[in-house]
Amino acid sequence: MTHRIAVIPGDGIGNEVMPEGLRALEAAASRFGIDLALEHFDFACCDYYEKHGQMMPDDWFDQLKDFDAIFYGAVGWPATVPDHVSLWGSLLQFRRQFDQYINLRPCKLLPGIKSPLADRKPGDIDFYVVRENTEGEYSSVGGKMFEGTEREVVIQETVMTRYGTDRVLKYAFDLAASRPRKKLTSATKSNGIAITMPWWDERVVAMSGHYPEVSVDKFHIDILTANFVMHPDWFDVVVASNLFGDILSDLGPACTGTIGVAPSANINPEGRFPSLFEPVHGSAPDIAGKGIANPIGQIWSGAMMLEHLGHKEAADAIVEAFESVLSEGDTALMTQDVRGTGTTESLGRAIARRI
Amino acid sequence: MTHRIAVIPGDGIGNEVMPEGLRALEAAASRFGIDLALEHFDFACCDYYEKHGQMMPDDWFDQLKDFDAIFYGAVGWPATVPDHVSLWGSLLQFRRQFDQYINLRPCKLLPGIKSPLADRKPGDIDFYVVRENTEGEYSSVGGKMFEGTEREVVIQETVMTRYGTDRVLKYAFDLAASRPRKKLTSATKSNGIAITMPWWDERVVAMSGHYPEVSVDKFHIDILTANFVMHPDWFDVVVASNLFGDILSDLGPACTGTIGVAPSANINPEGRFPSLFEPVHGSAPDIAGKGIANPIGQIWSGAMMLEHLGHKEAADAIVEAFESVLSEGDTALMTQDVRGTGTTESLGRAIARRI
Ligand SMILES: CC(C)[C@H](C(=O)O)[C@@H](O)C(=O)O
Ligand SMILES: CC(C)[C@H](C(=O)O)[C@@H](O)C(=O)O
Repeated sequence: MTHRIAVIPGDGIGNEVMPEGLRALEAAASRFGIDLALEHFDFACCDYYEKHGQMMPDDWFDQLKDFDAIFYGAVGWPATVPDHVSLWGSLLQFRRQFDQYINLRPCKLLPGIKSPLADRKPGDIDFYVVRENTEGEYSSVGGKMFEGTEREVVIQETVMTRYGTDRVLKYAFDLAASRPRKKLTSATKSNGIAITMPWWDERVVAMSGHYPEVSVDKFHIDILTANFVMHPDWFDVVVASNLFGDILSDLGPACTGTIGVAPSANINPEGRFPSLFEPVHGSAPDIAGKGIANPIGQIWSGAMMLEHLGHKEAADAIVEAFESVLSEGDTALMTQDVRGTGTTESLGRAIARRI
Repeated sequence: MTHRIAVIPGDGIGNEVMPEGLRALEAAASRFGIDLALEHFDFACCDYYEKHGQMMPDDWFDQLKDFDAIFYGAVGWPATVPDHVSLWGSLLQFRRQFDQYINLRPCKLLPGIKSPLADRKPGDIDFYVVRENTEGEYSSVGGKMFEGTEREVVIQETVMTRYGTDRVLKYAFDLAASRPRKKLTSATKSNGIAITMPWWDERVVAMSGHYPEVSVDKFHIDILTANFVMHPDWFDVVVASNLFGDILSDLGPACTGTIGVAPSANINPEGRFPSLFEPVHGSAPDIAGKGIANPIGQIWSGAMMLEHLGHKEAADAIVEAFESVLSEGDTALMTQDVRGTGTTESLGRAIARRI
């Protein structure tokens, strides 16, 4: 059985980490006899947008919908295309139109990486952020009144549905129930955001009735970010709305030393549409072109993709490979963010060899 | 000239830190010959709400509007009153009705306090969060449709105005211009929140035209929280919307060791209404009643109040007093969050003596 994978490197360092992501993927595929058919797409700001005045062709949905998965780099080049145009013209369309309503992001302190937090070692930080990925604060509803005048008023609506909320909560509770600690933390802000968030809390309580074995707590997002820094060991599975999940899944990886290694899966659990796998980091215009980006976020995302496609063993082999390369910590191979002098390619090749 | 101060301890540890806040205030007042007339108000969940079914009397506005300042502890007791009821019935009313549109929150790593961040020492972290405090994501507009059914939809509107945004930006630029580094960072999320936040970015650019001497950068809120942990030394003045400012001003103090010491000022810069001074921490039901809360957040808020009332010298004396008590670090005096075995009162008394 052949898995058809759409490969979209995107912009900036997306183009630098993708080859290493593919190198690891192909190494694992050949070792475990997995048949991957890769097809490349150049949807991006540079140069696609410049040529076509849009991020993707009009028929992108039809071009991509029958793939088994999308392997994605990073999109965005604010110097030429405003971020909201590039993101709403690509990534955020995939999440919505392919109904990838789960954004799953592991936060794990890896061996060989120094946490910016004092006295934390591998094992101390190991949790998942489960982020709602299609609705909430990332809405397209709202507008401006008295535009361009002193009286200007700008409104953006947060839209949450029971359908959209319950399904991400269910996924998060299932994940928590499957883990040894069986602990779920909900991110809220019901003291300040007084319509949507108290309602979110109610849905958490309602769902928890089906999972008596899962212990549940909740924190307001402000103190929750503080607790990520002060008590990262408290967390097992954290479930959050689209915006709060976005924040927590950058902050969590920062606490584990670098967002350069953090992976993510944008999942349509029913498999009606392709799921999408991408590093948490962006296109990083500031370091693009230098060949120094950490490829592990991309490589680990590839492992999540293989697991999603049913190849758990191959996924584990990739994770073991980068964990062992990291523990050895040969600074000539490591990228700067993990205290090395190597390049994207040196680290990527070392990991692929290990697989 | 007498300053009339309304004192509202509130709930939980608010009642424990307020006496120490007052002790420091009175010590400074007597040393510097400042005449304070304090009047106490019992507006809170416990017991006011239980007796009256609301957080404050109907005429709270008239009772408080002629005070020179409000010295506030912390409100909230979720076991008996839901947080959105207690907060929208008190603190959030003050901020709006008294048009305290600036929420000013210093984040400073103090001597004698261990940061949870590795290798950070006093001097490395010293910035202000300037938070919009009356509008934005904390709106009262929205509602539910198909309530209680599978089709339930819940909407909350973020409302930003040019009037409300420009005035907080102006305050933040003025503050940045007055500091040696002259650096302003704007918190945005214009790649995802595609109506309000790109507009916020535009207002920042427009305002920056009036401050050529201030260097400006911006980060999306997700990576900004990561940078608070990875590069707290990058920041000087951070300006943010109501929600983003809320998050950053808990996370920032967490990076400085404990939110127990963090103060805040809710300011109506024109002085039409009283400004309000409160610690950043909440009522902390989990440790309430034990007498172990750190009183420095309350004490420092009192210093900010004195400065606001024109007594900079007295404010500085309070800050010097707690800085010197902290540097000595007598663990018998310190509270738990700063690695001591003392009580709210032991630490408060030590600081008052020093003043
Ligand atoms: C209690 C709550 C409503 C409040 C806020 O979110 O503004 C608090 O967290 C704060 O930061 O002052
Ligand atoms: C690029 C941006 C729109 C995106 C998001 O906010 O979802 C990114 O930060 C992420 O976390 O995947």
